[in-house]
Amino acid sequence: MKVAIIFGSKSDVDKMKGAAKALKEFDIEYRVHILSAHRVPEKLSQVIQDLEAEDFDCIIAGAGLAAHLPGVIASHTTLPVIGVPINAALNGLDSLLSIVQMPKSIPVATVGINNSYNAGMLAVQMLSLKYPDLKEKLIQYRKDMKSKFISENEEGVEL
Amino acid sequence: MKVAIIFGSKSDVDKMKGAAKALKEFDIEYRVHILSAHRVPEKLSQVIQDLEAEDFDCIIAGAGLAAHLPGVIASHTTLPVIGVPINAALNGLDSLLSIVQMPKSIPVATVGINNSYNAGMLAVQMLSLKYPDLKEKLIQYRKDMKSKFISENEEGVEL
Amino acid sequence: MKVAIIFGSKSDVDKMKGAAKALKEFDIEYRVHILSAHRVPEKLSQVIQDLEAEDFDCIIAGAGLAAHLPGVIASHTTLPVIGVPINAALNGLDSLLSIVQMPKSIPVATVGINNSYNAGMLAVQMLSLKYPDLKEKLIQYRKDMKSKFISENEEGVEL
Amino acid sequence: MKVAIIFGSKSDVDKMKGAAKALKEFDIEYRVHILSAHRVPEKLSQVIQDLEAEDFDCIIAGAGLAAHLPGVIASHTTLPVIGVPINAALNGLDSLLSIVQMPKSIPVATVGINNSYNAGMLAVQMLSLKYPDLKEKLIQYRKDMKSKFISENEEGVEL
Amino acid sequence: MKVAIIFGSKSDVDKMKGAAKALKEFDIEYRVHILSAHRVPEKLSQVIQDLEAEDFDCIIAGAGLAAHLPGVIASHTTLPVIGVPINAALNGLDSLLSIVQMPKSIPVATVGINNSYNAGMLAVQMLSLKYPDLKEKLIQYRKDMKSKFISENEEGVEL
Amino acid sequence: MKVAIIFGSKSDVDKMKGAAKALKEFDIEYRVHILSAHRVPEKLSQVIQDLEAEDFDCIIAGAGLAAHLPGVIASHTTLPVIGVPINAALNGLDSLLSIVQMPKSIPVATVGINNSYNAGMLAVQMLSLKYPDLKEKLIQYRKDMKSKFISENEEGVEL
Amino acid sequence: MKVAIIFGSKSDVDKMKGAAKALKEFDIEYRVHILSAHRVPEKLSQVIQDLEAEDFDCIIAGAGLAAHLPGVIASHTTLPVIGVPINAALNGLDSLLSIVQMPKSIPVATVGINNSYNAGMLAVQMLSLKYPDLKEKLIQYRKDMKSKFISENEEGVEL
Amino acid sequence: MKVAIIFGSKSDVDKMKGAAKALKEFDIEYRVHILSAHRVPEKLSQVIQDLEAEDFDCIIAGAGLAAHLPGVIASHTTLPVIGVPINAALNGLDSLLSIVQMPKSIPVATVGINNSYNAGMLAVQMLSLKYPDLKEKLIQYRKDMKSKFISENEEGVEL
Repeated sequence: MKVAIIFGSKSDVDKMKGAAKALKEFDIEYRVHILSAHRVPEKLSQVIQDLEAEDFDCIIAGAGLAAHLPGVIASHTTLPVIGVPINAALNGLDSLLSIVQMPKSIPVATVGINNSYNAGMLAVQMLSLKYPDLKEKLIQYRKDMKSKFISENEEGVEL
Repeated sequence: MKVAIIFGSKSDVDKMKGAAKALKEFDIEYRVHILSAHRVPEKLSQVIQDLEAEDFDCIIAGAGLAAHLPGVIASHTTLPVIGVPINAALNGLDSLLSIVQMPKSIPVATVGINNSYNAGMLAVQMLSLKYPDLKEKLIQYRKDMKSKFISENEEGVEL
Repeated sequence: MKVAIIFGSKSDVDKMKGAAKALKEFDIEYRVHILSAHRVPEKLSQVIQDLEAEDFDCIIAGAGLAAHLPGVIASHTTLPVIGVPINAALNGLDSLLSIVQMPKSIPVATVGINNSYNAGMLAVQMLSLKYPDLKEKLIQYRKDMKSKFISENEEGVEL
Repeated sequence: MKVAIIFGSKSDVDKMKGAAKALKEFDIEYRVHILSAHRVPEKLSQVIQDLEAEDFDCIIAGAGLAAHLPGVIASHTTLPVIGVPINAALNGLDSLLSIVQMPKSIPVATVGINNSYNAGMLAVQMLSLKYPDLKEKLIQYRKDMKSKFISENEEGVEL
Repeated sequence: MKVAIIFGSKSDVDKMKGAAKALKEFDIEYRVHILSAHRVPEKLSQVIQDLEAEDFDCIIAGAGLAAHLPGVIASHTTLPVIGVPINAALNGLDSLLSIVQMPKSIPVATVGINNSYNAGMLAVQMLSLKYPDLKEKLIQYRKDMKSKFISENEEGVEL
Repeated sequence: MKVAIIFGSKSDVDKMKGAAKALKEFDIEYRVHILSAHRVPEKLSQVIQDLEAEDFDCIIAGAGLAAHLPGVIASHTTLPVIGVPINAALNGLDSLLSIVQMPKSIPVATVGINNSYNAGMLAVQMLSLKYPDLKEKLIQYRKDMKSKFISENEEGVEL
Repeated sequence: MKVAIIFGSKSDVDKMKGAAKALKEFDIEYRVHILSAHRVPEKLSQVIQDLEAEDFDCIIAGAGLAAHLPGVIASHTTLPVIGVPINAALNGLDSLLSIVQMPKSIPVATVGINNSYNAGMLAVQMLSLKYPDLKEKLIQYRKDMKSKFISENEEGVEL
Repeated sequence: MKVAIIFGSKSDVDKMKGAAKALKEFDIEYRVHILSAHRVPEKLSQVIQDLEAEDFDCIIAGAGLAAHLPGVIASHTTLPVIGVPINAALNGLDSLLSIVQMPKSIPVATVGINNSYNAGMLAVQMLSLKYPDLKEKLIQYRKDMKSKFISENEEGVEL
């Protein structure tokens, strides 16, 4: 179970931490690459080949503005690519549209703006198709989430 | 390899055909359900349980307007859910945002507006993690796509 | 006269206080639930049944992002549901569209972004159909509002 | 049980028919007025007084563009006002925002763009607070809706 | 030469000061009213009658959210009404559309978001049609503006 | 009483007819110029000088896309300029923003998208400040509009 | 003087014809390639190398949806790249943002939605920096454009 | 090699510095003008003539709101004009649309919102068509950028 997390700049670290957090909660190995579709396209292409060669299962890619990174990665691999729109301008609408509106045949599985945690969770869900143990953990995670939600909010709040 | 395709009305059939088309190209079995998160919530919940019991691998859900269907399905299952925003108003922007902006922990893998074919392709990519044969087919599909693209456009066009 | 106020997280308390404020001004009993359509769907469904069994009159629900909560509640009850779009991204436009664009037959009475006070006022107006005393209070409230507005602004301002 | 349906021009008849349809399904009496907040403000104000005098329960108002009609009506009455944004430009976004973003204290219960049927349904839900028979009909309507939905979609569709 | 400046709350004073500033620069008398289309519609209507009776020339109205104030004023007078969209949500887009998209026959002369100074300038331009002295001042103002702009920026800047 | 109507192409004639219609209803003389801020800037500048020399009172300018025409005209004259956003792309949002968001000191009185009739009406209102006869006609126009509206809609409609 | 025109599908021919039209008017040689950033990335990269080797001066690229083509081309060349947003959804807003919002260092010179003619004209302007003859033609083109505009619109229009 | 950088106010200096920075990196001479299309149109027109007379190669223009400056400059010159949308309201969407949506024949090469550095880079790319030395530098710049990117991100980051 190996997931790659790719984004374009150290300044995105805070916004992409959620993806790692989700993967850690499920003991899934991940590797982080800072790569840019526009600045180092050849390096990006080579890293993707490496990831395939090393049997990575899935790639999470975060980007802002004209966010081409997830789509460009998707054009170089048949692994599922999960795209995280990062808000760098226009509240992230530019990034969301640049990621989600991929043309026919080359999808990117897009999650919410700045919601890298959900990218991690989606990777977990995809991997759980293959790894029965993970499926069990995922079911337990949901149960725990529900219990925790209910216990945390049991006593109510004052409005 | 079983995928469910769920949407809310017979009037969406044309927009959701792409998902089936992609799955057929990879000989993946699929089942179609017309279900609404708002009109038959109990039935929806029960069908999702059935899908899990029958070992379905992934659910594709298409919806327009305040498109809750994919997110509501995701709340009832740990299977990956792929959301297709259908354009019924505002060029589909309402639907896109209603699907993609899911809260922390419950992702929906969102594809482009009206792009159900990509939802099918994304399902294929997810399943290919588990089924090596499918992975082979997917790699071949990409090769064929490239060859076909190049041969079709070889002779150029007049502008 | 009983109104339920439901929202998804303690972090929304400040944005939902307005609803309680309006109801208090009219001495209407309310109960607050923190519930999530996506995290605890079964619990949500059960609470709604309880609210109906206890003869609640109306439900106010606030949510941000892909704000499914009001619509999902509406799918489980015939009580009028008032939706408050909470701004958590995109200035609240995602939330507004996710709440207001409900499909045929299952309406949500939507108020302005972050405007939970108006949700409370709308509940008062609905209840005033049934409770003549409340109608009187409401008419008085408007008169007072007008007098207060005029007296507060009587002396004018410097520009 | 009396509902008023108000809109600004004969050209809106088709878009407002849904409201009447919903009310007819529940045998609720309604009266239609063509009135404009901008062209005949005095007449509008007088009609609203008449509606209050005749014990109308609720007002449905549809408008396009800078859709002031529902809000202006709300400023003249304490009856609940339901606003229907009609798409006349910008896909109805101008109308939606002009109706839903009402200031503190004077809410308009807003439904989806062009979705006058839901305005009718929301009126039914409000009235059902007061009229137990209507509440029964509403519960039956939901049951019938569910049965009809399931039976209509039972045999599935081909994709 | 008399201009009225109307807006809905003391909290808008800062955003409306620009209108007064422009009028002062041209020695045009103005009167400020805090009035709300939704909270004190009768008072608003009466004040507009007074303004007409006192031979005011033009009305500047600023409002945010579902900004009905300028349009409602326009429905009560044949004086030109200048609308200032105030940003209170959605970056002022709701307010802009609520003001500018007026129906046929009842225009509001709309200026930019939060740009009350331009509302004042537009009033000056309108009044200059009638008052030749003002026309002279306006021509001089433009000349001075040009000279000032050029002298201020003559020495250039470092980039 | 002379008004100029300026726009950039014969293809805009249909969308600008409304302005002429309104002016004709009030017997106001108008002259039409097809001029482009980008294609014939010198000619535009010269025509504006001519209009000023001939004592025109006001200029109506319609434009689509990056609609600079009204603002460029405003930069060359102290006459009030009325801008009509024409929908040529993006539902006219590009045009509206290009016209209304003018910088400090150089306003354009903006009306609704494609609503050239209101531009004509606004010109009438401006001119009525100067010409008492026109003011009378305008008051009569409003009265007639009200009577006509009421008589046309007196018998009601079927929904 | 050689310009490449690249776009992703024969179905875009009509929308890209404008670029060729402009280039033909200035007798600039151009070559058309149908290439996709997502479907044939290696081929695209190779073609760009060929264009550089053959001393092409500039590349025009048109794309719709998540329009990565111009940006991906720009990442592979130091030639100026002109991007044409093609409207395939959301009125072309997705495409515009995907093209124009490029990250620091890798610009794409973006023109208006569907406005491939302007892409051709921009290429002409760029080339005119290098080729004095072209500069002459461009100056003449502008003169002719002005004369033609004036003569075509000389006799005015009826409104 | 001479580039002009034009914008409308000293308050834009910070947002326009990027353009100068890029040009400095390539030892390209530039001159800065603060000029406004609306406040000093004649001066603007004269400066553009001077720039042409002095054989400037290209003009970079930045503007916010109804950003006419780049387009107005383009109407006065056949030099390529690069437009920088500055965010002054609506997250810069008004400015972007006002710049990019130019009519047929008069293009503005638009870069991203607030991205003046890319405007500088685009100027470099245009000039490199004419100056072989610059082309060499540009190729080296890209190589350096790649090396720097890779070395800076070599050691990876912790998520």
